[in-house]
Amino acid sequence: MNPRTDAGTRIEATLDAALAHAGGEGAPPLLAAAMRYAVFPGGARIRPRLALGVAAACGNDSPALAEAAAAAIELLHCASLVHDDLPCFDDAATRRGKLAVHCAYGEPLAVLAGDGLIVLAFETLARAGLAKPRRLAPLVSTIAASTGMPTGIVAGQAWESEPQIDLSRYHRAKTGALFSAATRAGALAAGGDPDAWRPLGEYLGEAYQVADDLHDIASSADEIGKPTGQDAAHGRASAAALLGVEGAIDRLEELVADAIASIPPCAGASELKAVIRAASARFVPKSLARVAA
Amino acid sequence: MNPRTDAGTRIEATLDAALAHAGGEGAPPLLAAAMRYAVFPGGARIRPRLALGVAAACGNDSPALAEAAAAAIELLHCASLVHDDLPCFDDAATRRGKLAVHCAYGEPLAVLAGDGLIVLAFETLARAGLAKPRRLAPLVSTIAASTGMPTGIVAGQAWESEPQIDLSRYHRAKTGALFSAATRAGALAAGGDPDAWRPLGEYLGEAYQVADDLHDIASSADEIGKPTGQDAAHGRASAAALLGVEGAIDRLEELVADAIASIPPCAGASELKAVIRAASARFVPKSLARVAA
Repeated sequence: MNPRTDAGTRIEATLDAALAHAGGEGAPPLLAAAMRYAVFPGGARIRPRLALGVAAACGNDSPALAEAAAAAIELLHCASLVHDDLPCFDDAATRRGKLAVHCAYGEPLAVLAGDGLIVLAFETLARAGLAKPRRLAPLVSTIAASTGMPTGIVAGQAWESEPQIDLSRYHRAKTGALFSAATRAGALAAGGDPDAWRPLGEYLGEAYQVADDLHDIASSADEIGKPTGQDAAHGRASAAALLGVEGAIDRLEELVADAIASIPPCAGASELKAVIRAASARFVPKSLARVAA
Repeated sequence: MNPRTDAGTRIEATLDAALAHAGGEGAPPLLAAAMRYAVFPGGARIRPRLALGVAAACGNDSPALAEAAAAAIELLHCASLVHDDLPCFDDAATRRGKLAVHCAYGEPLAVLAGDGLIVLAFETLARAGLAKPRRLAPLVSTIAASTGMPTGIVAGQAWESEPQIDLSRYHRAKTGALFSAATRAGALAAGGDPDAWRPLGEYLGEAYQVADDLHDIASSADEIGKPTGQDAAHGRASAAALLGVEGAIDRLEELVADAIASIPPCAGASELKAVIRAASARFVPKSLARVAA
């Protein structure tokens, strides 16, 4: 796709092509529908926007590979939401303002939709990687490490099953890992240095975690499309509980400032800063934005 | 690892190294244990043996990549067993003669163990693919296609949730896909032509399906380490029900003969034929082998 096309359009088109492949000749129709339902309509697509933003800042010499990396990260994020909502975890009935996948399609298809989306993420990467073979292994490794064990989102979710939860590891794995993968994968897809982009992903991941805690206590379920008050209900630690609401907002703003300051010198830095400011403006719940202002 | 080392030893060592990575620094201990429990001790390791056998027949110029491909296929097979045994699918209490993962570790960790094993499969491939970058994209694509949608094992399992089951697609996806991936991935890992090895995988996949049907009706649960009589209990179609026990054994022998006849001319053909004869000798349940003899 033309790299001058709007990032949102490129992300939706790449996700749509991936889901079209998954629902192609021979597919069981209900699972194809459940996978599509889990991905569309999307949330803010923050992680894939971040990946494309970093790829652009690194020169964007392979837009199709950057789009595939961005889509892979979003597919993995969607897979984790589908499995997190299952009765054996959060037992959430709603997500993004509609029924959770297990409520709309039943538990078996929700388990399989998550599995299918994980596999589709790596398949999407591999198809685009044919044209840039030397970039594929580090891309798959980076994205897999942010998703699996020992420190990816699957590991993060598993800390909830431990008798002693390591909170810092829990948050870094459950939320931070995929943000950090988004910036590093964006760099890798464009032939850039992934390590230079790690701090940006880590600061934003932590900022997003603080924002999520704020949403959980301060938003209504209508506003964010999923149940709120879950941290208190499940006895989970939360920045808002620890720092108070205003303290948490201060911390969030500090982290976004650190994120922007961490951007390495590059041609596309100013556009990227705009992408990050736009994304992080959505972090604070509407009701609290008024309090903070 | 030295390619002259016994295939079984190479497979176990590669799986062990993958699980050691997954359980490394920062891992939540229970999930690390659940993943290892799902993989060891293994079953017959038929699929990875087949992959290594084909790689050897193709000249085995990159043993580490062949081992990674074989291990990836086995990790994906183990992941599918863990998820298939969940209460929302077969609700099986035992597997390979011990408690199923969801019974030993609980349902949340069983879901996550399956997810973690899927991701680990692709990560294992990517690490070995660094040394042979041009082979990685087709390997990931081939293995992902045999696992996900529209025609891999996830798709196969999803046919059980459709109001109208397409039986031929169901069996091809649920059992055949990973056998076909094993032969093609073995060839790809060694720089061979994957298409030449497709019939071998397909014949063996169908043979294995017939054998599984025979086991389901003729074995005791003690003999195969998981509940039997599941096809009848779940109303699933079965070659044994369709052809009768002796007809099914005839069909099985015919398929193994077709498989062996399909092997392309190559230096390692006679060793590979021995691998296949050894594997397929285990296909017929002990009690029926006496009847057939």
